[in-house]
Amino acid sequence: MAGAKTTEESIIQWIQRHAPQRPESSVRLGIGDDCAIIRPPSEAFEMVVTTDQVIENKHFLRDSHPAGALGRKLLARGLSDLAAMGAAPAWMLLSLGLPDWARGDWLEQFLSEMFDSIRALDPGGELVLAGGDLSAAERFTGHITACGTVPRGRALQRAGGRIGDRIYVSGALGGSALGLQRLLAGGVADETDPAVDRHLRPTPLLALGSALREAGVSAAIDLSDGLSSDLGRLAKASGLQAVVDAGDVPLFPGASRQQALHGGEEYELLFTAPAGLALPERLAGSDIRPIGELRAGEGVVLREQGRETPLAEAGFDHFRSANSSS
Amino acid sequence: MAGAKTTEESIIQWIQRHAPQRPESSVRLGIGDDCAIIRPPSEAFEMVVTTDQVIENKHFLRDSHPAGALGRKLLARGLSDLAAMGAAPAWMLLSLGLPDWARGDWLEQFLSEMFDSIRALDPGGELVLAGGDLSAAERFTGHITACGTVPRGRALQRAGGRIGDRIYVSGALGGSALGLQRLLAGGVADETDPAVDRHLRPTPLLALGSALREAGVSAAIDLSDGLSSDLGRLAKASGLQAVVDAGDVPLFPGASRQQALHGGEEYELLFTAPAGLALPERLAGSDIRPIGELRAGEGVVLREQGRETPLAEAGFDHFRSANSSS
Repeated sequence: MAGAKTTEESIIQWIQRHAPQRPESSVRLGIGDDCAIIRPPSEAFEMVVTTDQVIENKHFLRDSHPAGALGRKLLARGLSDLAAMGAAPAWMLLSLGLPDWARGDWLEQFLSEMFDSIRALDPGGELVLAGGDLSAAERFTGHITACGTVPRGRALQRAGGRIGDRIYVSGALGGSALGLQRLLAGGVADETDPAVDRHLRPTPLLALGSALREAGVSAAIDLSDGLSSDLGRLAKASGLQAVVDAGDVPLFPGASRQQALHGGEEYELLFTAPAGLALPERLAGSDIRPIGELRAGEGVVLREQGRETPLAEAGFDHFRSANSSS
Repeated sequence: MAGAKTTEESIIQWIQRHAPQRPESSVRLGIGDDCAIIRPPSEAFEMVVTTDQVIENKHFLRDSHPAGALGRKLLARGLSDLAAMGAAPAWMLLSLGLPDWARGDWLEQFLSEMFDSIRALDPGGELVLAGGDLSAAERFTGHITACGTVPRGRALQRAGGRIGDRIYVSGALGGSALGLQRLLAGGVADETDPAVDRHLRPTPLLALGSALREAGVSAAIDLSDGLSSDLGRLAKASGLQAVVDAGDVPLFPGASRQQALHGGEEYELLFTAPAGLALPERLAGSDIRPIGELRAGEGVVLREQGRETPLAEAGFDHFRSANSSS
């Protein structure tokens, strides 16, 4: 996308040429009309839909976040919600609000890494960019709407936890918060630093979400706002209290416990399963680890050496913090 | 929504209390999980999806556009695309980027008028707010994703026009551009001025879109960017040239011909039908009027007293103009 070719029409044409093509998909009519036309799945399936946004100076800073990483992250935010429901991706819509500086090369990098990420995450080729909207803007905004399919009645919900269920988390926590801290510490971002990479380029765990659904877990949520916040949401939706064994929370190398308990943008999956359900230590490429259990009550409690203390939500609330990234 | 109650959680709770409730809808699980869960329509139907945005200082100015009108307009932008496909609304997602000033009363007015508009447009009660996303932002942004259903294979597309088809438009044109001109002329907006009202509070023509589909029209588009632009899109998608009889373009009272030919945000429907198809002069509450025809060639031509001149697209391109409203 040359700097000069930045009319609305030329951007749409560039997207049509470069977005992954899936001729046999659920999208019967894609980019270029008032609406996209979607074939519904068979009645054996339901659809799940989600929408997410990245906004300049709230979710990212232009100087510290590379354009390509941001395109990948916006995609990951949407697809991670599908993963948390145990769904397979089907189609997405993408809307952009573009300042002058974000057209041309910046936009090409943003979109190219997003499209490459789609090809890598979805080699079977179901996920289609079906449409979107472009506008000028004073601050960059990116919006994704993502739709997936899941066998009817089988979507993983936050509300499915039962008394006695074990709480599990995938991966290791705190890396994204650590990476953000290093990124904002100034200087040029070291993208070879694993923590910085984890913050900049999260991977939505689609295969893990489907595997967990098939394994029969009871509830799930993705870790977007931090363990303390997101586990609080799962516990509240299930009408129960979550107890976390502090020593069992897996730490990303170099991350502090505070970063692991409260740091956002992990995009790992947090889920619960009946105590009798045997789960492997590794599933669909991710380590999974028990960190506590659900019991009667409310809120989240941290248990350490026999002592229990309430774990206040200190994860990201979009209106509590007005700082850069969540 | 009191000024103090503006945490993310309190806004979501306010929305859950005030959004129209449709217990028997296509939405099996709405606001409050990682995704909404949607029941697919039967295989006799397809779905159509669209996404639209309003961005501060691009689509509106805080000082001249009332919050309630803006909420209604964002809804209209999404639903008008469904109308142009001949679809019935099913569900929507709403994402907001909120500066400090936009929380509290402003947001309550924005949402209240949107929700009232849903109740008025959809008395049968199919359209459900299924979810969304909230974030802080330096400039207000609102995003809607709207999904509708249409009998399989019957969605109206831009590409359906055939040689000899008549071109029709609903309503009268230029009112929105005239209203915007008056709105920006300074002073307090006179919301009793019909042109100002038309600019601020457009109505998506859902019943007309369905009636046109049932009547057998060949192609349709909604007038969001202006007749010259949108007719150019329909003609291009159909691989034909559009000829417009200048004297037949219906003018909104007080609007200039330039405003009628190029002004955006009308949200009227522009459509084509075989010359042999008898259409009434009034349908689903809208006047409909023939303004020209499709023939071999490309582009849009204005015909007046036997002379033909190319009608250049002068409607809204989001990157040609950086000014306030489209």
